[in-house]
Amino acid sequence: MSNQEQVTRDPQVEAEVERQLAVIRRGAVEIIPEEELVGKLRRSIKTGKPLHIKLGLDPSAPDIHLGHTVPLQKMRQFQDLGHNVTIIIGDYTGMIGDPTGKSETRKQLTLDQVRENAATYVEQLYKVLDKEKTSIRYNSEWLAPLNFADVIKLAANTTVARMLERDDFEKRYNSQQAISLHEFFYPLMQGYDSVALECDVELGGTDQKFNLLMGRTLQKEYGKEQQVILTLPIIEGLDGVQKMSKSLGNYIGIDEAPNDMYGKTMSIPDELMVKYFELVTDISLEELAEIRTGFANGSLHPRDLKMRLGREIVTKYHGEEAAQAAEDHFKTVFQKRALPDDMPEVTLEPGTVWIVKLLTDLKMAPSNGEARRLIQGGAVKINEEKVAEVDAQIELQDGMVLQAGKRKFARIHLG
Amino acid sequence: MSNQEQVTRDPQVEAEVERQLAVIRRGAVEIIPEEELVGKLRRSIKTGKPLHIKLGLDPSAPDIHLGHTVPLQKMRQFQDLGHNVTIIIGDYTGMIGDPTGKSETRKQLTLDQVRENAATYVEQLYKVLDKEKTSIRYNSEWLAPLNFADVIKLAANTTVARMLERDDFEKRYNSQQAISLHEFFYPLMQGYDSVALECDVELGGTDQKFNLLMGRTLQKEYGKEQQVILTLPIIEGLDGVQKMSKSLGNYIGIDEAPNDMYGKTMSIPDELMVKYFELVTDISLEELAEIRTGFANGSLHPRDLKMRLGREIVTKYHGEEAAQAAEDHFKTVFQKRALPDDMPEVTLEPGTVWIVKLLTDLKMAPSNGEARRLIQGGAVKINEEKVAEVDAQIELQDGMVLQAGKRKFARIHLG
Repeated sequence: MSNQEQVTRDPQVEAEVERQLAVIRRGAVEIIPEEELVGKLRRSIKTGKPLHIKLGLDPSAPDIHLGHTVPLQKMRQFQDLGHNVTIIIGDYTGMIGDPTGKSETRKQLTLDQVRENAATYVEQLYKVLDKEKTSIRYNSEWLAPLNFADVIKLAANTTVARMLERDDFEKRYNSQQAISLHEFFYPLMQGYDSVALECDVELGGTDQKFNLLMGRTLQKEYGKEQQVILTLPIIEGLDGVQKMSKSLGNYIGIDEAPNDMYGKTMSIPDELMVKYFELVTDISLEELAEIRTGFANGSLHPRDLKMRLGREIVTKYHGEEAAQAAEDHFKTVFQKRALPDDMPEVTLEPGTVWIVKLLTDLKMAPSNGEARRLIQGGAVKINEEKVAEVDAQIELQDGMVLQAGKRKFARIHLG
Repeated sequence: MSNQEQVTRDPQVEAEVERQLAVIRRGAVEIIPEEELVGKLRRSIKTGKPLHIKLGLDPSAPDIHLGHTVPLQKMRQFQDLGHNVTIIIGDYTGMIGDPTGKSETRKQLTLDQVRENAATYVEQLYKVLDKEKTSIRYNSEWLAPLNFADVIKLAANTTVARMLERDDFEKRYNSQQAISLHEFFYPLMQGYDSVALECDVELGGTDQKFNLLMGRTLQKEYGKEQQVILTLPIIEGLDGVQKMSKSLGNYIGIDEAPNDMYGKTMSIPDELMVKYFELVTDISLEELAEIRTGFANGSLHPRDLKMRLGREIVTKYHGEEAAQAAEDHFKTVFQKRALPDDMPEVTLEPGTVWIVKLLTDLKMAPSNGEARRLIQGGAVKINEEKVAEVDAQIELQDGMVLQAGKRKFARIHLG
């Protein structure tokens, strides 16, 4: 920095830039290029003109889980810093389906199907975002009017080789799996969204890096100021290994009941806790630093930390009272290892039933296969004693308590 | 063929199918699939409904030469057989520029630039085609109204791997030369032309095979009857090696003066004669067969054959009288090795001049380099004697005759 530049800098402005940067950096994997972000923040603070922050969402999955909230939390932080945030609903891009990270061509949806999905989706966003300060735009607004010549002009801004550098395309091409030509337009459309909206910053998961950079490329080609890109981690689900996803069943939905939300949180591996605190809760940067240190040096007990995490998450989506009740429920059921006070009561005909059939009939296992796996894993108990054999025939008795896994119980009555 | 099919076939129809096929097969490299063409011809003859034949032209080169007439001749033959022919002027595709066979991305033209080129181009077409029976269509007619969603639907019909199978794309990709993404749309647009026009047959050079087959693919995807494709050879130019092309200077333009047209024809290698007779003249199939045999067994003298070829070509573009005059001129200048009766007269100051400067001053060589090459090749004569040295200083004399190559002469007078 030259002396001349130094003297023109206002210390108050610089302090505010630093304050905002600390919030923005929380949990971010990459900010490209960070010096441009600093410049944009400085200008915004000096002029009082907020930055324009963009997050594109593909509403093909109608239920939001904690994995989806990672970029939404960052958007909320930008809102709290006074910037303008715009959620782009990819209704037009949804007709292609983002092939990012996918190993095959996705089914094309109609504009109507995408908008239908989007309707239920948008309401859920406001559990994280400040509705009053959120702008929602559908990208058909500026993509639908483009004609063939406009599309050609758009496509002329990139090369086939550049597209094939994207991880998933490269893998599919090299393993001779078909890449339909229209899939190349997903990144171009997403990039054009940034051209149309003149975005300053675009957020996305690390798997979106290629698409986000395409926005920078296209803005330059169309004579716009380039956006800064900010990537965020993809969080692992309950198993601690796979990306949180509905199809893998390892997710915590933001619409789930407090007891389930709390219980699921308690089941994540200890190693994930700090990441969850950082990315899906609203605790302050100071508290986050304390937790990180306390977990690392062992001064905070993992069980206590995880209960704190459970309370934070449930509080965020259901309020403090619900969080306390969920914690009490959890303590009763799992910590005291007692049977819960309230459990479903079922009335059955007297007789002898194959344990697998009993579990599926009572919907305590979704399939025979799953029932078998539960038994083999030692997760099925009758009156608190494990059922050892998958072909066990159970003679039903009045008041018998059947348990599958940690949280499913049923008290049987003979009718 | 089953007996049942045989009995339903009308011998007169079959004879007409055979007659037409013989004309259509003349000079064709591939007809894919020929059995579909037979079916289409049979239906056309039975119903009296002409087939719809398409040739797409890229009017980026405004002057037509004999190489371009190869597919035009075939179109004319289809016209003479009673079918409908449509010339597609690729004004919309011209915005991309056909990358076929090219080793780099072509400059994009505007719609106006392409249409300007097309105007002079179309008039020249009627030197081969029957104007009354020719339909000219600009592909902007059906391509310009397509929106982004239509383009996506179009692109979804092919894969990246399929596109990269095309020879020139494959070479460029493998040698890491940039392929701009928009270039992939050239074959798709050309193919969509066939969808829009419901073509029965599309013609093109062998280098167009990929693009022509794309028409078949797209017609199937859009629920249309598929076209048959017919490929024609790319003819070599005067050098007998390279494809005839304006930029290589080895072409015979259809607008050239009779003497030049005839003289250039006489300069082609003997091996090319039969191919030229077949592809760029109107001689009958019977005569063609005689020429082929006569040339092969030596019963027809190559010089006589080539003069016949010259007459045929000049007659086609300038009439019989001009052809005869061109032949007479040629005989005088080249066969009798006499100086021509009429040659440009120039008046120069007396003195000594460097031979290279003399040639360029008199516009008998376009550049010093070319003048040097002519001298080194023994093509420069003064009073019918070769000039041996490129640095020769020539003392000008009244009545001196300067000759460069076979057809450029000047008589010098001292003033």
